[in-house]
Amino acid sequence: MNKHLKVALAMPADVAAGIFPERVLDALESGATLLSREPMSEFTSPQSLALLAEADALITGWGTAMIDGSVLDSAPKLRYILHSAGTVRHHVGGACWDRGIQVSTAADANAVPVAEYTVAMIVLANKRILQVAREVREQRSMLPAHEIFPDLGNYNKRVGIIGASKIGRHVLRLLQCYELELVVADPFLSDAEATALGASKATLEELCATSDVVSLHAPSLPSTRNMINDGLIASFKPGATFINTARGELVDQDALLARIQQDDLHAVLDVTTPWELPAESPLYTHRNVLLTPHMAGSLGSELERMAMSTVAEAHRLARGEALKFRLPPEQRGLSA
Amino acid sequence: MNKHLKVALAMPADVAAGIFPERVLDALESGATLLSREPMSEFTSPQSLALLAEADALITGWGTAMIDGSVLDSAPKLRYILHSAGTVRHHVGGACWDRGIQVSTAADANAVPVAEYTVAMIVLANKRILQVAREVREQRSMLPAHEIFPDLGNYNKRVGIIGASKIGRHVLRLLQCYELELVVADPFLSDAEATALGASKATLEELCATSDVVSLHAPSLPSTRNMINDGLIASFKPGATFINTARGELVDQDALLARIQQDDLHAVLDVTTPWELPAESPLYTHRNVLLTPHMAGSLGSELERMAMSTVAEAHRLARGEALKFRLPPEQRGLSA
Repeated sequence: MNKHLKVALAMPADVAAGIFPERVLDALESGATLLSREPMSEFTSPQSLALLAEADALITGWGTAMIDGSVLDSAPKLRYILHSAGTVRHHVGGACWDRGIQVSTAADANAVPVAEYTVAMIVLANKRILQVAREVREQRSMLPAHEIFPDLGNYNKRVGIIGASKIGRHVLRLLQCYELELVVADPFLSDAEATALGASKATLEELCATSDVVSLHAPSLPSTRNMINDGLIASFKPGATFINTARGELVDQDALLARIQQDDLHAVLDVTTPWELPAESPLYTHRNVLLTPHMAGSLGSELERMAMSTVAEAHRLARGEALKFRLPPEQRGLSA
Repeated sequence: MNKHLKVALAMPADVAAGIFPERVLDALESGATLLSREPMSEFTSPQSLALLAEADALITGWGTAMIDGSVLDSAPKLRYILHSAGTVRHHVGGACWDRGIQVSTAADANAVPVAEYTVAMIVLANKRILQVAREVREQRSMLPAHEIFPDLGNYNKRVGIIGASKIGRHVLRLLQCYELELVVADPFLSDAEATALGASKATLEELCATSDVVSLHAPSLPSTRNMINDGLIASFKPGATFINTARGELVDQDALLARIQQDDLHAVLDVTTPWELPAESPLYTHRNVLLTPHMAGSLGSELERMAMSTVAEAHRLARGEALKFRLPPEQRGLSA
């Protein structure tokens, strides 16, 4: 196999140890030349400068130092930055874009576990599985589930996906295996694109008012702050479930809590505002809330999926192919 | 469309009201002739005898009375029994088989929600989502999930499926969308068949000793009673999760409880022995157990999936096509 790519690792040692174990580095070396198994955590030591002088590509990770013009001056061959996580704004400086360096991320791989969490929660919510399990536990009796919740079931229920983002699209992909009615709300999505995703397009208002489960997958931008406002929250169907794996600030949390406390809305929240809720928050203990600590994204073994996505990008380059997950240069400073 | 099939409903009125609502009967009539919207709950009244005299097919359900030789004597045109649930042994008498009547069931449709429940539980188990949510609730703090359970994640984990039954196959079908290592144990499955299901074949012993999640989908037969015995239970990996949506009697429940009480095994149990556990059973409240009351199968809206599967069978016959879910006559008295 051709190995026409010299790669160096640029991230803190503890990050590299977690996400690039030996077996991942072995995989990387099967299709590209790794200049050193020791990652560089800075760009100024003699060892780092020697690596920068040779590298065609840098593999970066959480906590990689800023790659600015002076770093690039030490890296005359550098053409690619392959990031093993989602956001590059903290380490890919404007100079990288100015010099035409191609940037790729593992955001798509990071979307997978969020979508898997979401789909599991949709199935549980439609069938009231956790609610019934709690009743069984508390009453120490095998209660008849369908008598407690006559409307349960995962057939012909309507699931609303807000945002045809990477994560929203992975959710829709997984849901194709289920017999659910899928609707998607996204101002930038055409009817034809929605159909191609196996869903029908709806306005945000229609989606919130008619879905049995509403799952939020919109980006966090100034324009999306508080987008799930008190009016939309009031419009949710009685007994509906709201899932938020995106960002707490997209939701009017006070209105959400008030509706939850009316006992006719369920919520699965992986994110809140503030991120660390005060201990007295009723969201910790309300019966209709399942609260998880921002764990839907990649954790544990799932970090290796992101590393392997980055390895696959390096192998594509070594074979003379294009990057699969290249960030469009015009997105610099936006979702990147 | 041709409507070359006259169909009658044979089940108790309350069962018919639940599983065959008006919209399902409308769907049935779009491709076959329904002799009456009133179901017959017995086979002796003048009304029932009039329906039996005309019917090419009976659609049956839970609680249908036994169809024996004397019923068949009143039904000279009857060639098909289309059952809208799983088991036909309670109402399809030997005379039906003897006279060559074709029998079809909705067992495949009934397998779908069980598989959906199972896959959701596998995703939750590998990521320790419910365990972390409980810690967050009890400690009122957004604890770092990966510090509580360092080995969490749904990537490269091994999932073992015991039994390539209808349900086991639906579980494997859904799991094809995930990046998990799938193994299947079934004495009647070849290596090639396992590969076609997207899994590799293992012995029951290998599967139990090496899987992160073990899910049981074997049939209940004299030979499978207690098949998950104390030795297999002792061999489960520390931290593994055992899921049982099949039957309680397939498992040595005392050995299972003892292992659970060692605090290094998690269990998701939709079935137990006895079916209604005594109130003092520790399975109700142990932290590592999620107990649900035999609810993985079709409930609520999912009943309509079974009805629609039966409708589709009637439509196939009306079009002159073969049944899709015909029971092989040689299975009379076995899994049927």
